[in-house]
Amino acid sequence: MRILIINPNSDTAMEEKILASGSRVAASGTTVHCQSVADAPPFIEDYLDELLAGPGMVNLLRRTEPEYDAFIVACHSDVNIEVLREQTDKPVVGIGDASMKLATMLGHRFSVIQTTDHSVPMKEDVVRRYGLADHCASVRSVDESSLLPMSEQIAQAARLALSNDGAETLILGCAGCAGCAGLAEKLTAELGVPVLDGVACAVKVAEAFLSCGLTTSKRRKYRPVGE
Amino acid sequence: MRILIINPNSDTAMEEKILASGSRVAASGTTVHCQSVADAPPFIEDYLDELLAGPGMVNLLRRTEPEYDAFIVACHSDVNIEVLREQTDKPVVGIGDASMKLATMLGHRFSVIQTTDHSVPMKEDVVRRYGLADHCASVRSVDESSLLPMSEQIAQAARLALSNDGAETLILGCAGCAGCAGLAEKLTAELGVPVLDGVACAVKVAEAFLSCGLTTSKRRKYRPVGE
Amino acid sequence: MRILIINPNSDTAMEEKILASGSRVAASGTTVHCQSVADAPPFIEDYLDELLAGPGMVNLLRRTEPEYDAFIVACHSDVNIEVLREQTDKPVVGIGDASMKLATMLGHRFSVIQTTDHSVPMKEDVVRRYGLADHCASVRSVDESSLLPMSEQIAQAARLALSNDGAETLILGCAGCAGCAGLAEKLTAELGVPVLDGVACAVKVAEAFLSCGLTTSKRRKYRPVGE
Amino acid sequence: MRILIINPNSDTAMEEKILASGSRVAASGTTVHCQSVADAPPFIEDYLDELLAGPGMVNLLRRTEPEYDAFIVACHSDVNIEVLREQTDKPVVGIGDASMKLATMLGHRFSVIQTTDHSVPMKEDVVRRYGLADHCASVRSVDESSLLPMSEQIAQAARLALSNDGAETLILGCAGCAGCAGLAEKLTAELGVPVLDGVACAVKVAEAFLSCGLTTSKRRKYRPVGE
Amino acid sequence: MRILIINPNSDTAMEEKILASGSRVAASGTTVHCQSVADAPPFIEDYLDELLAGPGMVNLLRRTEPEYDAFIVACHSDVNIEVLREQTDKPVVGIGDASMKLATMLGHRFSVIQTTDHSVPMKEDVVRRYGLADHCASVRSVDESSLLPMSEQIAQAARLALSNDGAETLILGCAGCAGCAGLAEKLTAELGVPVLDGVACAVKVAEAFLSCGLTTSKRRKYRPVGE
Amino acid sequence: MRILIINPNSDTAMEEKILASGSRVAASGTTVHCQSVADAPPFIEDYLDELLAGPGMVNLLRRTEPEYDAFIVACHSDVNIEVLREQTDKPVVGIGDASMKLATMLGHRFSVIQTTDHSVPMKEDVVRRYGLADHCASVRSVDESSLLPMSEQIAQAARLALSNDGAETLILGCAGCAGCAGLAEKLTAELGVPVLDGVACAVKVAEAFLSCGLTTSKRRKYRPVGE
Repeated sequence: MRILIINPNSDTAMEEKILASGSRVAASGTTVHCQSVADAPPFIEDYLDELLAGPGMVNLLRRTEPEYDAFIVACHSDVNIEVLREQTDKPVVGIGDASMKLATMLGHRFSVIQTTDHSVPMKEDVVRRYGLADHCASVRSVDESSLLPMSEQIAQAARLALSNDGAETLILGCAGCAGCAGLAEKLTAELGVPVLDGVACAVKVAEAFLSCGLTTSKRRKYRPVGE
Repeated sequence: MRILIINPNSDTAMEEKILASGSRVAASGTTVHCQSVADAPPFIEDYLDELLAGPGMVNLLRRTEPEYDAFIVACHSDVNIEVLREQTDKPVVGIGDASMKLATMLGHRFSVIQTTDHSVPMKEDVVRRYGLADHCASVRSVDESSLLPMSEQIAQAARLALSNDGAETLILGCAGCAGCAGLAEKLTAELGVPVLDGVACAVKVAEAFLSCGLTTSKRRKYRPVGE
Repeated sequence: MRILIINPNSDTAMEEKILASGSRVAASGTTVHCQSVADAPPFIEDYLDELLAGPGMVNLLRRTEPEYDAFIVACHSDVNIEVLREQTDKPVVGIGDASMKLATMLGHRFSVIQTTDHSVPMKEDVVRRYGLADHCASVRSVDESSLLPMSEQIAQAARLALSNDGAETLILGCAGCAGCAGLAEKLTAELGVPVLDGVACAVKVAEAFLSCGLTTSKRRKYRPVGE
Repeated sequence: MRILIINPNSDTAMEEKILASGSRVAASGTTVHCQSVADAPPFIEDYLDELLAGPGMVNLLRRTEPEYDAFIVACHSDVNIEVLREQTDKPVVGIGDASMKLATMLGHRFSVIQTTDHSVPMKEDVVRRYGLADHCASVRSVDESSLLPMSEQIAQAARLALSNDGAETLILGCAGCAGCAGLAEKLTAELGVPVLDGVACAVKVAEAFLSCGLTTSKRRKYRPVGE
Repeated sequence: MRILIINPNSDTAMEEKILASGSRVAASGTTVHCQSVADAPPFIEDYLDELLAGPGMVNLLRRTEPEYDAFIVACHSDVNIEVLREQTDKPVVGIGDASMKLATMLGHRFSVIQTTDHSVPMKEDVVRRYGLADHCASVRSVDESSLLPMSEQIAQAARLALSNDGAETLILGCAGCAGCAGLAEKLTAELGVPVLDGVACAVKVAEAFLSCGLTTSKRRKYRPVGE
Repeated sequence: MRILIINPNSDTAMEEKILASGSRVAASGTTVHCQSVADAPPFIEDYLDELLAGPGMVNLLRRTEPEYDAFIVACHSDVNIEVLREQTDKPVVGIGDASMKLATMLGHRFSVIQTTDHSVPMKEDVVRRYGLADHCASVRSVDESSLLPMSEQIAQAARLALSNDGAETLILGCAGCAGCAGLAEKLTAELGVPVLDGVACAVKVAEAFLSCGLTTSKRRKYRPVGE
């Protein structure tokens, strides 16, 4: 089976990290590729970025659809995932959706660690939209005034989520952010709780849909209107 | 990786069907076995059955733990799953949990089709416990007065869920029930919407946890007290 | 004060109806204009349409921003409203948001009448996102197989919402749809319950923000990242 | 259009401040009056006060009904609003209802600033009743031991709501309280986030209903029994 | 212990029936009295009735407080219960509150049977306020066009709640309504499910508080302001 | 009437304390006994303990059923209560269920004080399952590193619940824990808010069901399958 991870950012430097996260966990027989969206913003941070990434994401989906069996959106806010689900008959998995729902099977409540304070309310909206508010201990951002490396900033926020918020599992609220390659494993080892990397989770969920012969329902919500 | 599907019923006739569902979707390199709980009730139907299956489930888990990397509870109410998660350091996946959370990624709302009316409130409790009430169109049972084969009764209930309840995806609320081998595929083809088989979903979720190096958090909820 | 109603569709035939709805209720001293989004789809029906309307909406907003004091999105799903709120320091009001929240002050539960069955789950998502599920009796669509004029199809659905769903107020789930000019008043008179037109509601809410000197908070959620 | 603001307190010293808040934002063509309830408690603080204000509120409504087109209840807990809605065919707007629902259109979450700690649970009940709990960052009271002027106590609580609770908008949880004339504007300027004054919001919402020809549904909840 | 049941209606014909319901279940050693509120409406049906009953309820409470250890409000909407809880240091129990919370210990979901359609939304509000919506199958009214005796109308609605709404327990949504003396027992026998009479439930809950030495917390919500 | 309190622990030293709590509040004419479950763990702390206590609880219920009119489960997580409700036609009351629902009638929000940090997420699950999350200020555990007597540790946690969490009532989250005999009364006196002892509450609720002639609905959820 062939899975395309869509990096909705145009920063191709992230591709390698994203692909590393995804390939590492793929089953034998699964081919994972990652493509950035050429005409998207370098790094999605606000609502305008989300919107501007959209047309390129759809174009990439359409152009590559014959070659792949499933698609992943590698942005932890699952940006534009509804339009992709509508525009293909093949499954589309969000890294936020996959990681947060898997996390609920591993502990009482999860915390999501964001790399900017600005993105906290946006992620809180996503959590509520998925019905996961009761299973979410907190959405926390790093201390943006810190001069430490990002990976250490994330570790600090993660420790606070465990000690102050009652989190039992942790989720990295980004994909391919600076210094986060292998970060989930490193933090899992250091903190002694599961730390979920959304890209890895989404690859496995995509494999799940393909192995089970499942794809998006086209009954109403995700049926494109022309059909 | 080696996965044991625990059939919490003692009816070994179900083992073969459950194993078929699980093996069919396993990745190459995954070995899936199914064992029934010898001293459990033949078929779990009420709260007493759930309780009586428990000690045997724990014993089976302990006896087989060195041989397997992950465990699945093959009862769609995820019976006794919390105690299993507590009693092993390896991931434990429920077929209700896995199928209902995956279903939310495929359509607006799912319906669960139960084989007895009696089990409807029990399943409604599970749906609410997982925070999925807003994503659940209905929990429906077959018409128990019907003389049709069970697979046809399930198809009838499924059609009502689509036409009356607004379901866009369907979930079989049982594991290995009479006549349900291959039923998910058959119904998917017939009804044109995804029909999820919990055993298949759970095998893929277990593989996800193993590939990602994730296991149950032992921070509080699932830490056995002696540790 | 000057308010621009953005018709996110490119069908300029709707402009006139939308403008009529908006102008009719404007305070003296309020100037209301309506502009369609030239490069948007003719009529937004699915997620792709929503996305494709977005860049044109932002461009229209930017181009016209100096001339207007507030903006309205004239699509009852409040499509792309978050990006507009982020991209201007002036208030942006959605016709779905305004009509549904005002409706809660007039009766126990509202029903929204959609002109297509396809849009029902999309609107249900909006209702939940606004926290209004407990105050919503139903989202109902017209009978798409009917050969009656749209205004009569809407009246039929409205009558069912009152008799079957317990609705006490009604909301037209479209803006400027065929035959709906003056429909709210006509139905209010016929059915004896308040029938809310989103465009009219939004104009008054925009006036409210302007009169009170209120605009979007730029503290986190709606702050564009460059600022 | 003519709007009567009912001050459910008998302290006529508040009338002037309430009227100032309301008049300042009224459209040209809108006449706003404020009348206190002669036989009400001087200042509503507890449940008994709420009850005792009720009969006078109904009497005032009845006596003045022919002269006015809409009514506002100028107590941020929207005390006795249901009975007023039932007893007139004209719209009745609560300043809590209007300000909290408008606030949700301006930012992620609002905080309400109360002038007494005692009133916090009462306001929390109102927030939940309106379905706004997910959009409310906190209900905070001033520090009652403070010797600072009330306006500065409110500013202090407001700053804590922003820094500690994640509020993006603020609402004054009183009407016409000592020193709060013009306070919303002053705080908006000082804190850089929208600060909503319920009286002003309610006047604009009442105008909205009148301009749109909307009034309370008399279908069930607000139908007086004799009719 | 001495318990006063406050009949918030002035119709003394109800007193006898209410007292019969309450006395029948009282423990030996418990004295139960019932007093109507002289200046209340004959029968509370709408919001105005609720308000007008209030001052008389407070007066009755104050006048009788030295003689009784606990108070019950014998209206299934628990009208004015918050002000009574505030105005006495002794426990005050609502028959709606008591019956609905006890019902949750006896079955999956309860239905409340109302004697008028008009009161359905009011009772739905109460259910939501108590956090019981997930445990409520329906609030149903009798068929008001029926010419059958009220007790038979209630039985009809009760049968529909069981067959159509999934109710497992039933609650009479009135106190002392015409023909309902002994109705709970009669229906329990006829329908084979528990049918709760709120007055009886409340007497036992009041005894519970008295035996346990518990009374209303005066920490914030129910503390009268002068204290 | 005769009530059996089932101590699901095998530590008979708790029996005396539990019985003291229960007997103290029983009505004259009520006989209360307490029996421990011989083959249960000494003290239930984790999910395995809960499971292992189950068969003995059912056996005790069956053996003693002819002698008693109602049963109480004396573990504040209401462990295995569903199976007991299913296995008898007589009412079964949980001390968590009874105390938390009674607490909602006495104040704005309750806090539950647990004796171990480990049990906090388990109790939070129970609170949510009962629909009480909005009425719960917090689930707090004692400071396990403290060397103070348990009763003083509980008092400390209780004081924090009042000052920091906004609790207005308190509930002891255990039954018969070391030093807690008479603790509810002692804390009520010391802290000036109602402190509920679950065993006492449950005895009164059981009496309520017996006096009212109410027992568990056998319609679906609690009907054993053989019947």
